[in-house]
Amino acid sequence: MLKLGIIGTGTIAHQFIQAAQLAGGYELSAVYSRKKETASQFAQPYGDVALYTDLEAFVNSTLDVIYLASPNSLHYQHALTILQAGKHLIVEKPAFSNPREFSHVVEVAKANNVLILEAARNYHEANLGLIADFLADKVIYGASFNFAQYSSRMKNLLDGIYDNAFQSKMSGGALVDLGIYEVYAAYKLFGQPSSVRYTADLLPTGVDVSGSGQLVYKDFHVSMIVRKNAQSALPSEIYTDQGTLVLNHIQGLQEAKFHGLDGDVKTLPLKAIRHLMLEEAQAFAAILTNPKEYKEIYNHLLTTAQQVNETLTLMRQDANIRFEADL
Amino acid sequence: MLKLGIIGTGTIAHQFIQAAQLAGGYELSAVYSRKKETASQFAQPYGDVALYTDLEAFVNSTLDVIYLASPNSLHYQHALTILQAGKHLIVEKPAFSNPREFSHVVEVAKANNVLILEAARNYHEANLGLIADFLADKVIYGASFNFAQYSSRMKNLLDGIYDNAFQSKMSGGALVDLGIYEVYAAYKLFGQPSSVRYTADLLPTGVDVSGSGQLVYKDFHVSMIVRKNAQSALPSEIYTDQGTLVLNHIQGLQEAKFHGLDGDVKTLPLKAIRHLMLEEAQAFAAILTNPKEYKEIYNHLLTTAQQVNETLTLMRQDANIRFEADL
Repeated sequence: MLKLGIIGTGTIAHQFIQAAQLAGGYELSAVYSRKKETASQFAQPYGDVALYTDLEAFVNSTLDVIYLASPNSLHYQHALTILQAGKHLIVEKPAFSNPREFSHVVEVAKANNVLILEAARNYHEANLGLIADFLADKVIYGASFNFAQYSSRMKNLLDGIYDNAFQSKMSGGALVDLGIYEVYAAYKLFGQPSSVRYTADLLPTGVDVSGSGQLVYKDFHVSMIVRKNAQSALPSEIYTDQGTLVLNHIQGLQEAKFHGLDGDVKTLPLKAIRHLMLEEAQAFAAILTNPKEYKEIYNHLLTTAQQVNETLTLMRQDANIRFEADL
Repeated sequence: MLKLGIIGTGTIAHQFIQAAQLAGGYELSAVYSRKKETASQFAQPYGDVALYTDLEAFVNSTLDVIYLASPNSLHYQHALTILQAGKHLIVEKPAFSNPREFSHVVEVAKANNVLILEAARNYHEANLGLIADFLADKVIYGASFNFAQYSSRMKNLLDGIYDNAFQSKMSGGALVDLGIYEVYAAYKLFGQPSSVRYTADLLPTGVDVSGSGQLVYKDFHVSMIVRKNAQSALPSEIYTDQGTLVLNHIQGLQEAKFHGLDGDVKTLPLKAIRHLMLEEAQAFAAILTNPKEYKEIYNHLLTTAQQVNETLTLMRQDANIRFEADL
């Protein structure tokens, strides 16, 4: 069993714990928060869990892996502390603010002989793999990926109050929060783009509340839309020489219909989703339990995570989105 | 009655004649084609129509207005000939290859005291006007306009044969053919963009088979997708402070549903479409019959047509799409 520690006491951390429990192989051992009360409240549903308010004591306790879901901009320092204590790291997406941070963290992980896994859940969805298989015998003409989600922080935003998710000092914005799923899906299906573009609606804080852009490949491009200021009925689509594949989404994929050029519509058989984060939790448990056996897969995941980070950074640069962490 | 002459014997010319007949105010008088047989075959359904194979004789015959639907790149020379003969011009979209051509044609029209009307049908749709009214009390957060239409010329294209619609010497490609509807819709609803971007999948001929881009306004942007190599289930959407308006399309608009932030869905009452080109045919008849009364409307249409042409040209430049007509 992997002794699991948690940094970050938001909804996403509860979801990861649920997924870890469903996956098996993990044992929730400790929770860190700056305030004892927050840690205690968070851990309440999980029974016997050690609570820490001292970060050094937490990372040096008997843990195998720490799931890190602090605000984006804090990942870097937290990650260094975790890795230097010789613990494996599962870091919620977006893992780090830019390639410089990411490279340094990778160096420190290697020096301490521990692993870094970015919790980019859709990259691990079996259904996304089925889509990749379905596309294998087709010529790709392009794709349109759409992710719009009206933020719970919009009410504050409209009152001129910009929460963490919309702060450049917190490495926030729509692209790194929602667009990252689209970029990961594109990497899974099409590999690394040769160039990228991004046009953003910037807030006074300097980050994007919405935007759209392109991932350019040799013979086609993927157009991306991301919005935290609207709901949308747009599905995502992949265009091929044989027809158009319509996906309900590029994460939480549960419906895929192929509209053939001949007019036939074929529903692809996809797996039911038990929990959105289950497949990543399973993959991480397998890798962390047998790092030697899964070495190639781990290396692929780490390389992809760093490339995705680079892609997002280039897109940010194209749209003049600068994080304090970039300085 | 406006004596109507026709240049161009494709489907679109038949459609315009039908629309003109429904609109009233026009009398189909003459058809020009380089080949007598083509003109004769084209005019067959319309009874007593003069047939011309000599362009000068045609434009100097007793006509008030000529509808021009020759291939895009021929519009310019045909237009000059028409205007110099003192005839009004209705030119199928895209009117001209670039702003230089357009400015020159406008000069010649003024010198000859005749009018130029671009047949950009969706700009005249009453339903698009209803959408503009509906948006008047809302703050716009952006829009996503999508127009994908699998071209009948794709089969040839895949065999390496590039028809006129895909030739740079014919001023072809997806943006100027389909994207122009999106740009016109954006002008109708939001006015002139402050900057534009376009990323294209270029054919060996140098024009775009598909692309996506942005029309950037002060506080938001419109993302555009155009494809001649795929069908798509994507609707178009407009995002506002009160919710998302989902349109079946940005031309041939016949369904609009507003998804309020409160979860309510409201179907907007739109007019049934009798004929896609009817409303432009009616507008043009009114303007040409009473040019003094409609002077302001005419000036607005001409200015908009020139601005749309400029917008499309800037988008082409951004995507490295060059027409022979640009040289």
